[in-house]
Amino acid sequence: MQSADLLISNGTLLTQNQSGTIIKNGAIAVFRDKIMAIGESKSFANWNIKKQIDAKGGIIMPGLINTHTHAAMSLFRGLADDLPLMVWLNDHIFPAEAKLDDEMVYHGALLACAEMILSGTTCFCDMYLFEDAVARAARKAGIRAVVGEVLYDFPSPNYGPLEKGFEYTRMLINKWQQDPLITIAVEPHSVYLCAPDLLQKASDLAQEYDLPFVIHLAETRSEVDTIKEKYGNTPVGHLAKLGVLSPRTVACHCVVLTKEDIDLLALHKVKIVHNPSSNMKLASGIAPLPELVRRGIHTGLGTDGCASNNSLDLLAEMDTAAKLHKVATLDPTVMDAATVLQMATCQGAKVLGQNHLIGSLEAGKKADIIIVDTHQPHLTPMYNPASHLVYAARGSDVITSIINGKLIMEDRCLLTIDIKEVMGKANQLAGKFGNPY
Amino acid sequence: MQSADLLISNGTLLTQNQSGTIIKNGAIAVFRDKIMAIGESKSFANWNIKKQIDAKGGIIMPGLINTHTHAAMSLFRGLADDLPLMVWLNDHIFPAEAKLDDEMVYHGALLACAEMILSGTTCFCDMYLFEDAVARAARKAGIRAVVGEVLYDFPSPNYGPLEKGFEYTRMLINKWQQDPLITIAVEPHSVYLCAPDLLQKASDLAQEYDLPFVIHLAETRSEVDTIKEKYGNTPVGHLAKLGVLSPRTVACHCVVLTKEDIDLLALHKVKIVHNPSSNMKLASGIAPLPELVRRGIHTGLGTDGCASNNSLDLLAEMDTAAKLHKVATLDPTVMDAATVLQMATCQGAKVLGQNHLIGSLEAGKKADIIIVDTHQPHLTPMYNPASHLVYAARGSDVITSIINGKLIMEDRCLLTIDIKEVMGKANQLAGKFGNPY
Repeated sequence: MQSADLLISNGTLLTQNQSGTIIKNGAIAVFRDKIMAIGESKSFANWNIKKQIDAKGGIIMPGLINTHTHAAMSLFRGLADDLPLMVWLNDHIFPAEAKLDDEMVYHGALLACAEMILSGTTCFCDMYLFEDAVARAARKAGIRAVVGEVLYDFPSPNYGPLEKGFEYTRMLINKWQQDPLITIAVEPHSVYLCAPDLLQKASDLAQEYDLPFVIHLAETRSEVDTIKEKYGNTPVGHLAKLGVLSPRTVACHCVVLTKEDIDLLALHKVKIVHNPSSNMKLASGIAPLPELVRRGIHTGLGTDGCASNNSLDLLAEMDTAAKLHKVATLDPTVMDAATVLQMATCQGAKVLGQNHLIGSLEAGKKADIIIVDTHQPHLTPMYNPASHLVYAARGSDVITSIINGKLIMEDRCLLTIDIKEVMGKANQLAGKFGNPY
Repeated sequence: MQSADLLISNGTLLTQNQSGTIIKNGAIAVFRDKIMAIGESKSFANWNIKKQIDAKGGIIMPGLINTHTHAAMSLFRGLADDLPLMVWLNDHIFPAEAKLDDEMVYHGALLACAEMILSGTTCFCDMYLFEDAVARAARKAGIRAVVGEVLYDFPSPNYGPLEKGFEYTRMLINKWQQDPLITIAVEPHSVYLCAPDLLQKASDLAQEYDLPFVIHLAETRSEVDTIKEKYGNTPVGHLAKLGVLSPRTVACHCVVLTKEDIDLLALHKVKIVHNPSSNMKLASGIAPLPELVRRGIHTGLGTDGCASNNSLDLLAEMDTAAKLHKVATLDPTVMDAATVLQMATCQGAKVLGQNHLIGSLEAGKKADIIIVDTHQPHLTPMYNPASHLVYAARGSDVITSIINGKLIMEDRCLLTIDIKEVMGKANQLAGKFGNPY
């Protein structure tokens, strides 16, 4: 008789594997941190199972992957909106960030982890200050994370001068290298805040340890104009010339691209993160996503931080991604539901260099699994699971989450986080930044 | 000692009145179907109250107003997506609609009412076939509704030839005229499906009974081209020339407008419904919303039907409206949260000609009230209630709903609808239209 630690059965199982296999009345068996087997529910009838979860006809699918956020900015949600970019940054966000310390980032990140788990995310890629705190928060929450300390030319409220930033990053690499959930990345902020020397050193470090090299890139027209004036090149062209574009590069935003930029991104097999809600709210522009996808460039989906979205709900982000490009191109067939769902699952895993581990439900992969409750008025009837997930479901429809084989949320109850305590702490900290209700 | 049937207390009370008054730790007293008084919670300490509801620090606000939908299309959600407009309509939607009857529309509309109540809507404006069934479903659900049978040049699956359509509309007017929740409207489909004679007769009928005249208008470039070729005028110009534009006109979509069109809409005090998600998903285009608002034209928010959104969640629709125009104009200050929140409340009431009754929390108005649970990770901390409602909250955060003084939903439980029965019926009907899971 075969045994498993956990069996989730009686659901529409979306594998998100290369063939897009869907199993009606499917089930998935988990042993330790890995997926052991997938099949029809009835095929597990004789198994010896420690813990059974009944999906009750809902959708069983890979956990969602948020490939770009700034988790601790959960503390700044709604602090300042609807403002010109420079007023928003200089008068609100930067002054708030100057007050941050390791402990505050820990609590803000833990709050964000709670929100992400509650909305179906099982892995996120973070860029911020005091990233050791973000790693600790993710570890506490039991969520998978790629984290990297933001590097730029001026002194940081965390590490001080830039040299210390590289030291801090090496400390993170050493501290977390054996962790089953945490991956460290090297994360220079952007081409406009990082001199060529910084970018090259960061790239060397990422190469030395074979880590993701995460950067904001070509986010706004103003960035492109600045870089062109300073270096005589587009942001993408500038990075190409510096020799730091590689399959390890995770380029976030990529809103303002030339045809030559897209050629360079494809040539160097750069990974891209699309953040449609943030690009809309900050009025950055509309990324040429259908063209990037058409070129076969691996593209993930990100929520960006809570001050520029203001949500970490990847299901809502999928909806936005699918709709924005239809209206931008006046073509209702682009970015169909299945393609967008891949961005939040298997494509997201490729972006983070973890597709051998996560992003689809396949035997041998890590058990990062969510259940969506479809037995609700807004998801009834269901003709097409991908359509429902992209266009109709929302984070609150995710009821159960397993990460690395561990049950993290069951029937909307967080099992790793004392959510009242986390919200109480956040409310307490909010007084430092504004006038909370 | 003063008495009330219901008191909701201990919340952040957003009145959405003309001054935008917000009362911290506010309360609202309801007597029969009306709002009796509003104030700080402590001011009601000595009142004699039949039923107390503790908002537990959440937001107390006017119920949301969905000014354009096709409720019964809930049965077609996800049946066909990501298709060219004419393929979607001719190969999927029209064939499905040809199978509809009064009973199916009743069940589809009831399902939609459940979804709308569960996401904070307390009033909706509907255009469809078999609208008596929609009125009955709304009445059963206890939700306020403006309903009108769709009129067009060709025979209808409901009433047959056009003359019968006018008879059916008169029947609706007579049947529902004393109803506290239902208002009948006259609803010619559009300028491309309705000949000038139809439009003028419909306008006369609306004038005779002082009812809303609801029409799809200038939704797509193709519509504008067709009408220009046929009548030598834009759709708006065509209606102006026919003399059917008035303050009673509710023009849905208004995506493709000229400067002269906007002048005409302003001149005739036409009301407009913005449906951003549908316009994005169907790739119709981006309405010039900031300009319409700047011109002082009353503009509400609509979800459109479930086959072209695919959600009836007005909180999500607010988010989309706020963000879409920022990126379209590359100006992050347009359509700020407060303005968009007005579209879904007090402006929506003006669009439907009901602002003397609903749209804001003021003594003497009908008691259409919702409570939003803000004690959740994605709404903690809260610096700005309008920002949270537009950019971070979702329909599932609405926990309690009062319509016309009656408690319709309490702690997410629907009190008027047997939701299992409604979903069961919808699943049963779905087999007639496609292959449901």
